[in-house]
Amino acid sequence: MFGRSLAGRGGAGRNPERVLPRGGETGCDTGGMDPSSPVPLAEANPFPDAIDPRLRRQLTFLIEADRLKTVLRQSPLAAADRRENDAEHSWHLALMALVLAEHADEEIDVGHVIALVVVHDLVEIYAGDTPLYDVAMAADQQERETAAAQMLFALLPADQAAAVRALWDEFEAEKTPDARFAKAVDRLEPLLLNWMARGGTWRTPGVTADESRARKAVIANASVSLWRAGKELIDESERRGWSRPGRPAAPPSGRPPR
Amino acid sequence: MFGRSLAGRGGAGRNPERVLPRGGETGCDTGGMDPSSPVPLAEANPFPDAIDPRLRRQLTFLIEADRLKTVLRQSPLAAADRRENDAEHSWHLALMALVLAEHADEEIDVGHVIALVVVHDLVEIYAGDTPLYDVAMAADQQERETAAAQMLFALLPADQAAAVRALWDEFEAEKTPDARFAKAVDRLEPLLLNWMARGGTWRTPGVTADESRARKAVIANASVSLWRAGKELIDESERRGWSRPGRPAAPPSGRPPR
Repeated sequence: MFGRSLAGRGGAGRNPERVLPRGGETGCDTGGMDPSSPVPLAEANPFPDAIDPRLRRQLTFLIEADRLKTVLRQSPLAAADRRENDAEHSWHLALMALVLAEHADEEIDVGHVIALVVVHDLVEIYAGDTPLYDVAMAADQQERETAAAQMLFALLPADQAAAVRALWDEFEAEKTPDARFAKAVDRLEPLLLNWMARGGTWRTPGVTADESRARKAVIANASVSLWRAGKELIDESERRGWSRPGRPAAPPSGRPPR
Repeated sequence: MFGRSLAGRGGAGRNPERVLPRGGETGCDTGGMDPSSPVPLAEANPFPDAIDPRLRRQLTFLIEADRLKTVLRQSPLAAADRRENDAEHSWHLALMALVLAEHADEEIDVGHVIALVVVHDLVEIYAGDTPLYDVAMAADQQERETAAAQMLFALLPADQAAAVRALWDEFEAEKTPDARFAKAVDRLEPLLLNWMARGGTWRTPGVTADESRARKAVIANASVSLWRAGKELIDESERRGWSRPGRPAAPPSGRPPR
């Protein structure tokens, strides 16, 4: 079971209520795999029977999690000419939570916020990344991701499957201060990368600065000061011509930005 | 400043003693850059003056941290045919800490362990990755990494630079239960990846199963059960011929595994 938020002894032990579930299909070039019959990676080279069965399940899950490193997002890295993957994105959010915690408008538990961001994209291993502005993919996102969660978390011992699911549900529901802050950094990070790319995914057909402001405004639910900065980056990018002003055009085809 | 471990309100507020510092040179194909005069990535596109100066420093640091996604380790991914980078490695350790915390022999604070692993490799942005078995690179590792820490953390406001430095020092010193557990998962993760690769970096010239057992035995400082499993994987790999038995040969040239 998971201590404060998660496993282990020593956790301060809080149990925020669990809320929203969600729901199966497949990926695309965002990296999701067909979840109809996923064969865990570890089955290609099973862990020896000499290892305790519970630990073996945990290790099998942890190897399956390696797939998150192959799920590509739309965001361009600042440090290299390639797109970001979900694992390195999740790490970046954890670091942002550490460094930006003082901007939270409500009291937060930084360790728990980090736990939320570490698990928040795991379901994309089977469900693929759903870009923020992609209306078509959003339609069945909940269904796809809930199915993915059921398959992926079931690799763990049941108590831990429930604990990881609870973390994911808490993040998605945005009903706790920790979840709101985790969501805020999840929205802020690609905004910073777009700024560094002088447009990045904001240049994708169909996306406008108005739409960015609307989609990113949830940052304000956790931090007025971070939203002030985020909005400044969107406004200034619009002034510099790095994004399209005005209202969104017809629904974009293909799979645009976040 | 950093709450329990790090920033923000709400942290339980503990302040483990800071210990070991460390020390300046450059990278190689492990991804380190020449740290003699690093120009922060954010200078290519500075954040607008309208953003509060303290927050601007934090964002500049967070963009510089993007470089960790380009620092390559020796370990092969289980999910793809490429080497792992430091950012996705750090994320994987965070997830391992969540899932494996119950195996800690001492009381640990999982949120703090995760904070340690999130920052533990940051200095490699300027210092490069130093593979576990690389005697030549290890000689000046401390000097290189201390210089890198001074430059990198100085991008932050002074109070936060000290806080991040303290986390890194705690990890390196291995004197707290949290640091010992963080170090244990740092040693266990590449071992799991080598198992999945049926050898992986264990096949590098000059590395033997004896040496692996010796280098990985620090896992036992945090968890007898995780070390039992880790040793079983090394032993079984040796039996299957995926690693070289016996004592280490002459010091390897080049840059072997971890």
